[in-house]
Amino acid sequence: MSDDWFYETHEGALRFGLKIDEMLLDEQSDFQRVQVFETPLFGRVLALDGLLMTSERDEYNYHEMLVHPALCTAPSIERVLVIGGGDGGTVRELMRYPEVKQVVMVEIDGLVVEASKKYLPSIGSAWDDPRLELIIGDGIEYVREAPAASFDVVLLDGSDPVGPAEGLFDRSFYEGCARVLRPQGVFAQQSESPELFRAVFADVVRTARDVFGQAHPYFGPVPLYISGYWSFTFASRSVDPLALIDARAERVEQHTRRWDRALHRAMFVVPKDVRSALAD
Amino acid sequence: MSDDWFYETHEGALRFGLKIDEMLLDEQSDFQRVQVFETPLFGRVLALDGLLMTSERDEYNYHEMLVHPALCTAPSIERVLVIGGGDGGTVRELMRYPEVKQVVMVEIDGLVVEASKKYLPSIGSAWDDPRLELIIGDGIEYVREAPAASFDVVLLDGSDPVGPAEGLFDRSFYEGCARVLRPQGVFAQQSESPELFRAVFADVVRTARDVFGQAHPYFGPVPLYISGYWSFTFASRSVDPLALIDARAERVEQHTRRWDRALHRAMFVVPKDVRSALAD
Repeated sequence: MSDDWFYETHEGALRFGLKIDEMLLDEQSDFQRVQVFETPLFGRVLALDGLLMTSERDEYNYHEMLVHPALCTAPSIERVLVIGGGDGGTVRELMRYPEVKQVVMVEIDGLVVEASKKYLPSIGSAWDDPRLELIIGDGIEYVREAPAASFDVVLLDGSDPVGPAEGLFDRSFYEGCARVLRPQGVFAQQSESPELFRAVFADVVRTARDVFGQAHPYFGPVPLYISGYWSFTFASRSVDPLALIDARAERVEQHTRRWDRALHRAMFVVPKDVRSALAD
Repeated sequence: MSDDWFYETHEGALRFGLKIDEMLLDEQSDFQRVQVFETPLFGRVLALDGLLMTSERDEYNYHEMLVHPALCTAPSIERVLVIGGGDGGTVRELMRYPEVKQVVMVEIDGLVVEASKKYLPSIGSAWDDPRLELIIGDGIEYVREAPAASFDVVLLDGSDPVGPAEGLFDRSFYEGCARVLRPQGVFAQQSESPELFRAVFADVVRTARDVFGQAHPYFGPVPLYISGYWSFTFASRSVDPLALIDARAERVEQHTRRWDRALHRAMFVVPKDVRSALAD
């Protein structure tokens, strides 16, 4: 046991710290600092540029919340695009659906995928699925060049709006996602803490609303993330997030650890104070 | 600006830190260390024995969640007992109801009340309400000696199960609360993090269920609390937590910042993984 701690600090005023039992990887890629370490409470943890990304203990909270709302409401889910998602958890959840014929995942940083394969095999347990096309490259560029109306679902599984993920929070990127989606397609993304980073969160929802015509935030705990409570945003030109496809949802509920249809409906209830922030 | 930080540490493995702009009070009472300090992100913060209790910024999350589920479902709410609650936020929310004729609040530590009156006036804004009977004393003893069936609502607004609040987590205390409640009465309390402290949380729910016959956890974010996502437990011999008294709830919704009837129903949805923990 070492006496080292990992600290994530925000605005020089708030810190979340995890004791490190053992540093397994600490390397600078072409894009960011990639760290994997063992902790007493969260198991193995992945951090990028000093920000906590995922852990063995709580990764299912995040991945189930990102994937199942979109996948259980989009009429067709044959072709899915994932931007980011280097730990592999999103792909694992997607592969639970036999209706999914192809997942294109575009992750900018090959080291994140390598590190996750080596150190976090329980998170990325579907790397060998033949339906996966893994592209190590720039997701923004990919979306710019992909044919229009070529995906049923687009999931933005990126990190925070600093460093290599910064452009993923630009309006032009949302316009690209809307373009590559089929008319009845669904887009979903993590959209930061609705409590601590309410301004960034509200920007995401408003931009997605402008671009897609409708966007709906939803909420749930991710204990690893600073402040512990996180938001996601569901956007679509035509799909109602509460109109679940019951047979499909019932099937996937056999495999989820947390998400089910009752929780789905509860997650989309927007508290009064958050509603006010979105109306400003 | 000082360079001081306040750290709350759990199991020697997890830390939540706030930068301190100014320490306003740091005193040992007969029961615990009482600190009030100014922070950049949470405004003024109250800590007891090194544990963060409440802040100007996010106190409404906690106080609205503790008070309104019980107060909007109990058929009668004339007499309310609060155990703890030294910052005054719970009393403030209770006094929004004209049906409340008397609130007895039993706080063990007079210094917490004094400090809150002096430094946190926006939280405890109802100290002068003539319906309040404030007793500085031991809540466990008070409950042991109070007449049976003498309260409509009992709210346990205590700190964590260490230090002076430890006995509040004992079965005999729950039995006392059940005894002083009228048959159609409602009991509610904070019940720790359902994610990080799942064992303590599950113990509370199970004990309350044993003693009252039914107990229902509910959930929501409290950004100041370590891991950020918190649980409360609603217990009653006969009252259904989802059977809201609409007229009363509609009235109080004019004053709440976060709680409303839609959020109420969403808060009581228990995620699959939490359900499993409660069934063990």
